Amino acid sequence: MLIKDSIDRSNARGYLRIATEEAFAPASVLEHYRKLKLDDPGFNSLWGFYLGSPSERAQSVIRRLQDLGGERLADMDASGIDHQVIALTSPGTQVFDAATAAAIAIDANDELSAAVNAHPDRYTGMVAMAPHNPDSAVREIERGVKQLGFKAVILNGHTLGEYHDAQRYWPIYEACQALDVPVYLHPNAPPKAMIQPFLESGLDGAVYGFGVDTGLHMLRIICSGVFDRFPKLQFIIGHAGEALPFWQYRLDYMYGAGQRSRRYPHMPLLEHPISHYLSHNVYITNSGVAWQPAIEFCQKVIGVERVLYAMDYPYQFQADEVRTLDEMTIPAEHKKMFFQTNAERVFKLGR
Amino acid sequence: MLIKDSIDRSNARGYLRIATEEAFAPASVLEHYRKLKLDDPGFNSLWGFYLGSPSERAQSVIRRLQDLGGERLADMDASGIDHQVIALTSPGTQVFDAATAAAIAIDANDELSAAVNAHPDRYTGMVAMAPHNPDSAVREIERGVKQLGFKAVILNGHTLGEYHDAQRYWPIYEACQALDVPVYLHPNAPPKAMIQPFLESGLDGAVYGFGVDTGLHMLRIICSGVFDRFPKLQFIIGHAGEALPFWQYRLDYMYGAGQRSRRYPHMPLLEHPISHYLSHNVYITNSGVAWQPAIEFCQKVIGVERVLYAMDYPYQFQADEVRTLDEMTIPAEHKKMFFQTNAERVFKLGR
Repeated sequence: MLIKDSIDRSNARGYLRIATEEAFAPASVLEHYRKLKLDDPGFNSLWGFYLGSPSERAQSVIRRLQDLGGERLADMDASGIDHQVIALTSPGTQVFDAATAAAIAIDANDELSAAVNAHPDRYTGMVAMAPHNPDSAVREIERGVKQLGFKAVILNGHTLGEYHDAQRYWPIYEACQALDVPVYLHPNAPPKAMIQPFLESGLDGAVYGFGVDTGLHMLRIICSGVFDRFPKLQFIIGHAGEALPFWQYRLDYMYGAGQRSRRYPHMPLLEHPISHYLSHNVYITNSGVAWQPAIEFCQKVIGVERVLYAMDYPYQFQADEVRTLDEMTIPAEHKKMFFQTNAERVFKLGR
Repeated sequence: MLIKDSIDRSNARGYLRIATEEAFAPASVLEHYRKLKLDDPGFNSLWGFYLGSPSERAQSVIRRLQDLGGERLADMDASGIDHQVIALTSPGTQVFDAATAAAIAIDANDELSAAVNAHPDRYTGMVAMAPHNPDSAVREIERGVKQLGFKAVILNGHTLGEYHDAQRYWPIYEACQALDVPVYLHPNAPPKAMIQPFLESGLDGAVYGFGVDTGLHMLRIICSGVFDRFPKLQFIIGHAGEALPFWQYRLDYMYGAGQRSRRYPHMPLLEHPISHYLSHNVYITNSGVAWQPAIEFCQKVIGVERVLYAMDYPYQFQADEVRTLDEMTIPAEHKKMFFQTNAERVFKLGR
């Protein structure tokens, strides 16, 4: 069992470090990316770089993504990470046709499951799925949760340009609520319909485009009324909540103004202000944001029980950041919630 | 002189309230908007609503935008605003052809100048200009600053889809640095190349689209190297810095990673990390964000001397918000800087 096996390592500092937005990619998936001819400038920008650049960063990311054994465990030990919650890296299955995507999800889940079974105290899995066909996605989610013991579902932004607020995807959310597993909404590059002004200035990726597109996606899901229909459904978003906690006041004010004036007659009237959903249906990780001001801000606005640690390995593998976060001047009980106990609860670790 | 005339009103609370992102529109400009046929979904969404909706919100905004006399002064008195720094409302001139735009700028500046001259203790002007033709824009900026006594330049997002990081616009920035006046980068609706995923979910306007597009625009300007070329140039952005202070850690990390790996060979290598420009070349107002957590966050990250008060009248005319901000639990000297003295310094009020 996770907690029992790891407790020795946590004694000195009083908490385990559980990293909750960590990525892997089977070699076969990277090969699919390499061969893919897609009219998606964001995909081409991102994977053209990682698969084509001779830079140290690209080489390191590509090598580490594929490893679920020695190098990853050594990196975790070196940086002090007790446990990783791992997902198929973005965009996962979501750039392929439905049949290819469904097959990739099954293979990726099987590969991740083997690693989790080999190192159950170090790894927890998230279910990859192909949202293209929601009924088939639900079947793979059920297999992942019930048979493989995975604890969340990964959703990587848009699928071939389509956002997942559309009602045809809601069976996925119904299943996740029924299975009591959260959906991790991970960034993807902004879709073709949005990316051009980001791309031409080198701002399409993790530097900015990922964040605003994922914030938009989360808002679209909230504004679609998904959480009024499935009030127990939980999402997780990384990167300090993709800045949505910071936008909370304006979101409430202007969304309320828009609803009162019926500026968008096709949009449903929500039961609550947007901030309600952020603090009842959304967990936040600090992936990519090893920075006390933003973490504390999220704890204050969304709730200290809703903010979780993540490293974003191997995209942001920085031992220094772990030390910085250890040294945060926040109450010790909040630090333990952040690094350990919130993740144990949300992902039902050790159960 | 502004400060002397107003000091009586400030005695009880110890500071003047100077609102720094306030809007007006000559009736003739609204008439131009009404007649304009433009392939710009963001403009059509925004002004289709304000000029077409029977809602209380739209009617109030349209009426109050046109008033630079009795109603505005009464609203200021009712809500406790001592002074407004006023600009032609977005998108200003920037949806018209170059000749029409230049003529509109001159007319708007003349109309605003008359109001400032009639109420010098209550109003300060920002210069409207047509960036289409930078040389002509510079001439109008010089007239506005030297002859009309205006204290800043308003730039409303993209001009017909084009962002203002392009070098052909740099003569405007050179002039602003030489004249020592700041550029207020105000939101516009996201351009056609970006807006679709926002628009279809009712998130294109002030609720979210404005913010991320203005953040993108500010980042594009920073990443173009404008501030390496004109290091004394100052920008102002509203809405709690369009969330850029919140993104600061990730911006520095990922922009640095991109520069080191030369992911975008066409982008210049900046002399400093992005955070340097945010705290040396950018002022922030809290327009639309009457919320202590975000204001304090900006003060901490960007500097307490760089955060200014704004109401966003008449788009966000809320007397309650003034009281809320008066009651912020921040040091009294920071509150006075926020409401009064930062604005006096940045806009050289009373001088």
